[in-house]
Amino acid sequence: MPAPIEFFFDFSSPYAYFASHRIDELAARFGRDCLWKPMLLGPAFKASGNQRLIDQPLKGAYSTHDWERMARWMKVPYRLPEPFPVATTSAARAFWWLDSTEPRAAKSFARAVFAAYFEGGRDISAKAEVVAIGAAQACDAQALAAAIDEPVWKDKCRAETDAAIARGVFGSPFFFVDGEGFWGADRLGMLAEWLESGGW
Amino acid sequence: MPAPIEFFFDFSSPYAYFASHRIDELAARFGRDCLWKPMLLGPAFKASGNQRLIDQPLKGAYSTHDWERMARWMKVPYRLPEPFPVATTSAARAFWWLDSTEPRAAKSFARAVFAAYFEGGRDISAKAEVVAIGAAQACDAQALAAAIDEPVWKDKCRAETDAAIARGVFGSPFFFVDGEGFWGADRLGMLAEWLESGGW
Repeated sequence: MPAPIEFFFDFSSPYAYFASHRIDELAARFGRDCLWKPMLLGPAFKASGNQRLIDQPLKGAYSTHDWERMARWMKVPYRLPEPFPVATTSAARAFWWLDSTEPRAAKSFARAVFAAYFEGGRDISAKAEVVAIGAAQACDAQALAAAIDEPVWKDKCRAETDAAIARGVFGSPFFFVDGEGFWGADRLGMLAEWLESGGW
Repeated sequence: MPAPIEFFFDFSSPYAYFASHRIDELAARFGRDCLWKPMLLGPAFKASGNQRLIDQPLKGAYSTHDWERMARWMKVPYRLPEPFPVATTSAARAFWWLDSTEPRAAKSFARAVFAAYFEGGRDISAKAEVVAIGAAQACDAQALAAAIDEPVWKDKCRAETDAAIARGVFGSPFFFVDGEGFWGADRLGMLAEWLESGGW
């Protein structure tokens, strides 16, 4: 089986949320698995000199409009949450804890976090919300709450973010296919063609 | 006939160069004309707090790789010019001068400027190069050289740039279809679907 596609994202990224609705199906079409890899955009922005889209003059307004348009285009439920963006440390740590023992459950949890934020408008920066989302996915709520504060998962989350940045990840979503990087939900078409043709 | 598509670009933008190979054909497919509108990215970056891609950590390296990849994907000749990027004031002024009397010649001139820079590696920031490119397109070289320094075309170039920024243009290429803005060469597919469906 060919190497899995890697999907790097921050839980607070609308473009990652949109991509999350397509990437597994796309990977499966080419006999690939897809590894979801939550990271923190803050350090990536610091490393790349970038800043949050919403804060940027002109680009912020364009993006806000583009998210609405892209949701309608992809027929994906979406509402810009308030507050936006938020810190996603708790959600990312919870994911990595779950992933260490139950990768499938981790992915379901990640989908639920995205939906809670971009469909339900729930504040996923709150640890209690993250725990509630996990509990609704049949996770052990008490263990999940404990894991979020454990140094090992703090470190894991930081290490994954650092590793992503070291590989050139500066935005969300960011994909790797056999070492080839693709940035942005609007590159899924190009990524599919890359898989189809074996690259060019 | 429906309103023309507007194509805003800076002559020094690889993504605009790539888009220039597709946009007229795309517009024609939907019975639309396409207005080419050169502008200066410098003021747009200043207004949006953005900076040149090539100078950005991580994103610069990604873009350099992506331009090569996109050229191969689109089967468009391309070589990153040296120096890059360059000031495109002379080329933009020359375009607007030509466009005022011969829009068709202005578009041919623009294509020739793009080719000179991204295929030929000629330094299009030099006035003499711009004049030579115009002369090869059967423009009146002397009149073109004079126009580049005339206040009226300096002002026109600045006014077009300011007008673009006022409409939200922060990058290159940037398209408007019936008031709807699309940023980036990688949005041509979405733009085509927008035209096809009448929007969504």
